[in-house]
Amino acid sequence: MSRATYVAVCGPARATEEEATWAEEVGRSLARAGAVLVCGGLGGVMHAAARGAQAEGGTSIGIVPGDDRDPASPHLTVVVATGMGESRNALLVRTADAVIAISGEFGTLSEIALALKMGKPVVGLGTWELAKEGRSVDPIVRASTPSEAVEKALMLASR
Amino acid sequence: MSRATYVAVCGPARATEEEATWAEEVGRSLARAGAVLVCGGLGGVMHAAARGAQAEGGTSIGIVPGDDRDPASPHLTVVVATGMGESRNALLVRTADAVIAISGEFGTLSEIALALKMGKPVVGLGTWELAKEGRSVDPIVRASTPSEAVEKALMLASR
Amino acid sequence: MSRATYVAVCGPARATEEEATWAEEVGRSLARAGAVLVCGGLGGVMHAAARGAQAEGGTSIGIVPGDDRDPASPHLTVVVATGMGESRNALLVRTADAVIAISGEFGTLSEIALALKMGKPVVGLGTWELAKEGRSVDPIVRASTPSEAVEKALMLASR
Amino acid sequence: MSRATYVAVCGPARATEEEATWAEEVGRSLARAGAVLVCGGLGGVMHAAARGAQAEGGTSIGIVPGDDRDPASPHLTVVVATGMGESRNALLVRTADAVIAISGEFGTLSEIALALKMGKPVVGLGTWELAKEGRSVDPIVRASTPSEAVEKALMLASR
Repeated sequence: MSRATYVAVCGPARATEEEATWAEEVGRSLARAGAVLVCGGLGGVMHAAARGAQAEGGTSIGIVPGDDRDPASPHLTVVVATGMGESRNALLVRTADAVIAISGEFGTLSEIALALKMGKPVVGLGTWELAKEGRSVDPIVRASTPSEAVEKALMLASR
Repeated sequence: MSRATYVAVCGPARATEEEATWAEEVGRSLARAGAVLVCGGLGGVMHAAARGAQAEGGTSIGIVPGDDRDPASPHLTVVVATGMGESRNALLVRTADAVIAISGEFGTLSEIALALKMGKPVVGLGTWELAKEGRSVDPIVRASTPSEAVEKALMLASR
Repeated sequence: MSRATYVAVCGPARATEEEATWAEEVGRSLARAGAVLVCGGLGGVMHAAARGAQAEGGTSIGIVPGDDRDPASPHLTVVVATGMGESRNALLVRTADAVIAISGEFGTLSEIALALKMGKPVVGLGTWELAKEGRSVDPIVRASTPSEAVEKALMLASR
Repeated sequence: MSRATYVAVCGPARATEEEATWAEEVGRSLARAGAVLVCGGLGGVMHAAARGAQAEGGTSIGIVPGDDRDPASPHLTVVVATGMGESRNALLVRTADAVIAISGEFGTLSEIALALKMGKPVVGLGTWELAKEGRSVDPIVRASTPSEAVEKALMLASR
């Protein structure tokens, strides 16, 4: 899988039912497309995305902030324990060819920002909106459904 | 200085004249208050803030992304070379008790987000505005002048 | 695989024929035992270990120092690009339950030392010998063959 | 100080009286030479070296593994909190032009190895001895006194 497309899926560690459904469907779609799912490895959106990937026989990597692999979702194919705390957010973005942000809190916002800083495409499903001086600045490609998000992420990643 | 208050100043590596003036005055005010300035160590806002701190006899730390200390602003008291690229953004936020964001691009947005994720106060001078689902979400404390930004950052840092 | 035993295999990026043969056999043995191979993802010992794991249908993770996944061995199951340079050495040790060091230069020595610092077992195949004040200090468990190295690493990892 | 020579001083967090005396004298000598001391920021050798630097009006940086600056030696000029655990060992080596290793346990050994990997000179005061296949491999420049260690480190750093 080392030559596949890698897509990071970012979102809250405590997800609403809708967010978890979105994340699971994103994980399923990525797996069906042969892409590798990268995520922060913990609960909520990360757990649901890994479950979706697993259900379709896909491959997923969880990059967790703590010293141990134990808190990681059991649905992941492999887990990397960084012991680096929030510094690990840069790693999952760095590893990915594109990022899908599902809703999300400040951790997700940092991953969106790091991806944009690195010049990587970001697709958003109901996530942060950005502005400066009252004017919208929207470098995030918007999607309305999980399958649209995956389609756009894979298209943008291949450029 | 190891028991002083540390304030990170974040902003673009290429600053407009106004941004540089703001940053220099922020650096001056922090130095006069006995606070340690932390920044990304490179040009623009970082360079101007370090120059301001130096002008008032203050202490500043530049945490640079590359392998060498050489590209760092000569106005810094000390430089830490991380060789970690964008992962270093989390370090300057982690080291600081509060963050002042001056205007800024995606790197600054990542630092704002990481600070909020870590529960650290963020004061903004003309920086990013955030919203979700069309509604403003503003965890950034707004300031209109450099001295107001420093005053608010030091007050919030001491809580 | 997230609940499997993870073993890091460390060694030089330019391997002799003997070192490559050892590494490949270590990779094969780990795969047959159902363990996940973790390595630095580049050439030499890392490449040969990944090839061995792949030949037996095993799972391997390469954690590379640069910004891109491209230089990684094509035999790896997944690749994590850290953009962190030598700081990534701590990550592969952190992720693993035990370390097997095959011969090796200074990078390998740093991984041995970090593993010992973290309290993780290290098994050596012809690797560094350590002493202080003329007296041998040998916290490395020695093995003479690849299969013995894997056997010892898995036994020590399970404690 | 951003253009000064930076020397990392590495050694155990719990030092014997002799090690602490050595470290303090190394800190004093570095300060007298106008060099910046870099260390891991905690107790033992790190604390004593910072105390020595401070006594001579020198500048020191402590790069601590945890999330907070609080556990750092009060003798340091500035403290950087990384929240990165052992991964921070690579940072202090990366920031320095040369390394002085005083005695030391596995953490110190990792810093010696990382410095040698990065091609930086390492001077040893009673520290680790290295061998492969029964033959000594000694890339560490040996010193018998603190002042000799500092002299050699500064000479090697300037090349």
